[in-house]
Amino acid sequence: MKIVRFDRDGQGIWGVVEDSTVRVMGAGFKPSNEVLSLSDVSLLPPCVPTKAVCAGLNYREHALELSMDIPEEPIIFLKPPSCLCEPGGVIRYPSMTRNLHYEAELAIVIGVLARDVPESEAHKHILGYTCANDVTARDLQTKDGQWTRAKSFDTFLPLGPCIETELDTANAAISLRLNGETKQHSTTADLIFSIPYLVSFVSRVMTLIPGDVILTGTPSGIGPMEVGDLVEVDIDGIGILKNTVG
Amino acid sequence: MKIVRFDRDGQGIWGVVEDSTVRVMGAGFKPSNEVLSLSDVSLLPPCVPTKAVCAGLNYREHALELSMDIPEEPIIFLKPPSCLCEPGGVIRYPSMTRNLHYEAELAIVIGVLARDVPESEAHKHILGYTCANDVTARDLQTKDGQWTRAKSFDTFLPLGPCIETELDTANAAISLRLNGETKQHSTTADLIFSIPYLVSFVSRVMTLIPGDVILTGTPSGIGPMEVGDLVEVDIDGIGILKNTVG
Repeated sequence: MKIVRFDRDGQGIWGVVEDSTVRVMGAGFKPSNEVLSLSDVSLLPPCVPTKAVCAGLNYREHALELSMDIPEEPIIFLKPPSCLCEPGGVIRYPSMTRNLHYEAELAIVIGVLARDVPESEAHKHILGYTCANDVTARDLQTKDGQWTRAKSFDTFLPLGPCIETELDTANAAISLRLNGETKQHSTTADLIFSIPYLVSFVSRVMTLIPGDVILTGTPSGIGPMEVGDLVEVDIDGIGILKNTVG
Repeated sequence: MKIVRFDRDGQGIWGVVEDSTVRVMGAGFKPSNEVLSLSDVSLLPPCVPTKAVCAGLNYREHALELSMDIPEEPIIFLKPPSCLCEPGGVIRYPSMTRNLHYEAELAIVIGVLARDVPESEAHKHILGYTCANDVTARDLQTKDGQWTRAKSFDTFLPLGPCIETELDTANAAISLRLNGETKQHSTTADLIFSIPYLVSFVSRVMTLIPGDVILTGTPSGIGPMEVGDLVEVDIDGIGILKNTVG
């Protein structure tokens, strides 16, 4: 099932994708009789996180590219809800940076409150998966040492286009295209820390609330974006998250 | 004016302190006729932040203590809403750490949405001030390099007891006592980055929402807490934020 959220008079409405249409979901996520054309709705980020928890270095090839050791535990950081950006939305190039980078990532969407969850139970707390772009001001990341400022500007977390609840995460292909050219390409088979491990690890630090997301790290091939660029995060089985830089 | 929030049947209710009583505030923050004894209410964190933005090194004496240069810009990091702890609440000692530290801080509470705010306009976006304890797992802070895990465990952000809307921030005394012994003592006159500067700086990175807080850094004298300890953050003009470690 592919879940979307779209805007109607300033309200976020849930829907389920059926081919090229969206069935509007009512209270208690019950299907209504209303069906809209997918091309007519204005998509929002498909969930409403209270926090986005991100894992640093988590693809083997990316670790090799950076000549870094494989970490023994994930390094985590946060992006605030204020940096969400909708599918099709504009990533704003802040005046504070001169080096804006894309990072394609698979995002886990939490469905059931998670606190001190063992790896074997992690799947019970996952609603599904979506595409994310962990937009980063690379110069500020280096300057500050702490990554928060570099990764927290408004619009620095494009998320979408939908939540796929039945993704096979064993070997899902993930790509990033910049103006049509493939810049990142890998699969989730290359993840250092698995999805159940990440959910368990983060839940042992902080309680995860339904709608919260965990970004699972980016593959090799990171690089800069310029104003006017079209950036696409494409994950097999989920879809394509497209944004422009403005 | 001192604003508090307290629990009534699982709901957060606003009130204004009048001597040893609380006047319950109704819809639109209008005073009601209901007055309760302050000792009878179960206080909650006095605001509901979507994010807590924290400034690193921001007291001159603390920078000297650590033999660090005065930074040219603030280093910021985030604590998630899930780590809030109420006045009187228990700070949980996580099994992942062996070195749990207190950090007394003055917190700015945002009252009006703030985006790209100049320093001269910052005061218009501030509702008031409260006490905060930026609880930190010092060993994990060192191990990870990134500070997020060390500072984001559940209960790692005690906040309260009230929001003082008329605090004179030019030279407010701030202290931390551990089991009655003063461990940190300074005044806001020692701040490296001023309150208006911090609001302006953060608002140029991310939009601040009413209820969001900015923690302004901790003075010298940081140190460990053990299970059973009583820790008090005392800021003149606001009050005392008391918590135990459990």
